[in-house]
Amino acid sequence: MRSLSGRLDLCSINTATLGHKESIAQVIDDVARSGFGGICPWRRDFADYDVAKAARRIRDAGLKVTGYCRSTYLTAVTEREYQENLDGNYRAIDQAATLEAECFVMVVGSLPAGSRDLARARAKVVEGTASLCQYARKAGVRLALEPLHPMYAGDRSCLNTIAQALDIADALEPDAGETPTLGVAVDVYHVWWDPNLERDIARAGALNRLFAFHVCDWLVPTRDFLTDRGMMGDGIIDIRFAREIVERSGYQGLVEVEIFSELNWWQKDAETTLATCSERLQSLC
Amino acid sequence: MRSLSGRLDLCSINTATLGHKESIAQVIDDVARSGFGGICPWRRDFADYDVAKAARRIRDAGLKVTGYCRSTYLTAVTEREYQENLDGNYRAIDQAATLEAECFVMVVGSLPAGSRDLARARAKVVEGTASLCQYARKAGVRLALEPLHPMYAGDRSCLNTIAQALDIADALEPDAGETPTLGVAVDVYHVWWDPNLERDIARAGALNRLFAFHVCDWLVPTRDFLTDRGMMGDGIIDIRFAREIVERSGYQGLVEVEIFSELNWWQKDAETTLATCSERLQSLC
Repeated sequence: MRSLSGRLDLCSINTATLGHKESIAQVIDDVARSGFGGICPWRRDFADYDVAKAARRIRDAGLKVTGYCRSTYLTAVTEREYQENLDGNYRAIDQAATLEAECFVMVVGSLPAGSRDLARARAKVVEGTASLCQYARKAGVRLALEPLHPMYAGDRSCLNTIAQALDIADALEPDAGETPTLGVAVDVYHVWWDPNLERDIARAGALNRLFAFHVCDWLVPTRDFLTDRGMMGDGIIDIRFAREIVERSGYQGLVEVEIFSELNWWQKDAETTLATCSERLQSLC
Repeated sequence: MRSLSGRLDLCSINTATLGHKESIAQVIDDVARSGFGGICPWRRDFADYDVAKAARRIRDAGLKVTGYCRSTYLTAVTEREYQENLDGNYRAIDQAATLEAECFVMVVGSLPAGSRDLARARAKVVEGTASLCQYARKAGVRLALEPLHPMYAGDRSCLNTIAQALDIADALEPDAGETPTLGVAVDVYHVWWDPNLERDIARAGALNRLFAFHVCDWLVPTRDFLTDRGMMGDGIIDIRFAREIVERSGYQGLVEVEIFSELNWWQKDAETTLATCSERLQSLC
């Protein structure tokens, strides 16, 4: 297992951690100046900033792009909406290619409004992922299926375990070999509770499908379903144990911090948040 | 699959659904008068009402006792606290026997304060369940391990899937045959998202370990982690599908309604809540 002490070059900041308050140009500069080795931007960061320009700025700053967040949900009420979602994702995959991102992070959606048919939503996710996989392979972009915590199964993601993600990857890309297009993003927030965590991460590693590793913490109590993630060390996840499993299974990428925290960290300035991430990554993760 | 239309005798009310506002005597009378076939009381219902007296009142009202809620958490900071938790559970098992409850519902606890060691908490749960199982077998009481939704894995339960519960049951009671002491309580709220739901319920049924079936609904959005469960039909769970699986797998017990709803149903009178449960059970579940 790698030591992160003095190795911020092995660490990355997901731009959501800073609350999307500053321009992406500013965030790139802040993250690089703080010594981190990588960044993971969101599509919303490019609402008024050119992706190619940002890609150059990121490269010039010496940062890797550990991922690009995130897919439009695949599930939809109508077939037309489903096609529009695919189209949006094709464009985002092109942007991920421009950014030379390690992966395009896929949050797949769940039950369309009015539906209780989880099996159908899951089948639609497989169908959509198949289409995106073909497109992404040609674009040279890897797709990281991100299982979301089961508390999001009603609205945000019907993909809820690493095993489920790997089953999809294996079904769609059975003989992927050394360089699969489909893999998983392991975020400790979503999977820390899973009784099969070690088994399934080992399986992902053996298949070369570990594309991203995200850290933050689970607060007790948690006050909001979406935006009350904790800084590493402030909650109850054994993050170092999770990293040990991931690295033992072959993961050699960066450790990415992704914290949604409306009530705490998003209210602080970027410098404070980045300094705290730096300290916690090196001492606790 | 049984029809519930005109068959409220197949349905039961967990007393938490009514918010613990009235005495257990009143609740027994209300539930019986509304035509339900069963009731599932909580230990707190007997803070100032004798258990044996309640048991007689329940029998006289013609109600079955579909369960008795619930265990003191098994996990603890100190060995002394752990022993006290066991002792509390022994006393509750005796009460479950007095009530002739179908099962004693076990919510097992999770990380003790200050701990991040989920594997250790899970091992302690197995150890505690082994002790309770011996005691319960002598008392003629069945223990229903209740997997709780993974969003409770930090504080309330490190037992989060049916598969996990069955693994514990099989390990502690490998040759249970027709009348195991250890089984599971399947609550749709906790397990509806599980990709292995059909497989694991079938496994539970084949082992004669389906001891209880609880219904309510998952609201989108959910506003509180603990007390924002929905009335059947107000959320996104396919409850009828879950009941179909459970009954196909051999479950012949009652369908128990357990709704924690600080913001809605607990603010209504018992008559309204019971009438709504009755209507939804018969038309939607």
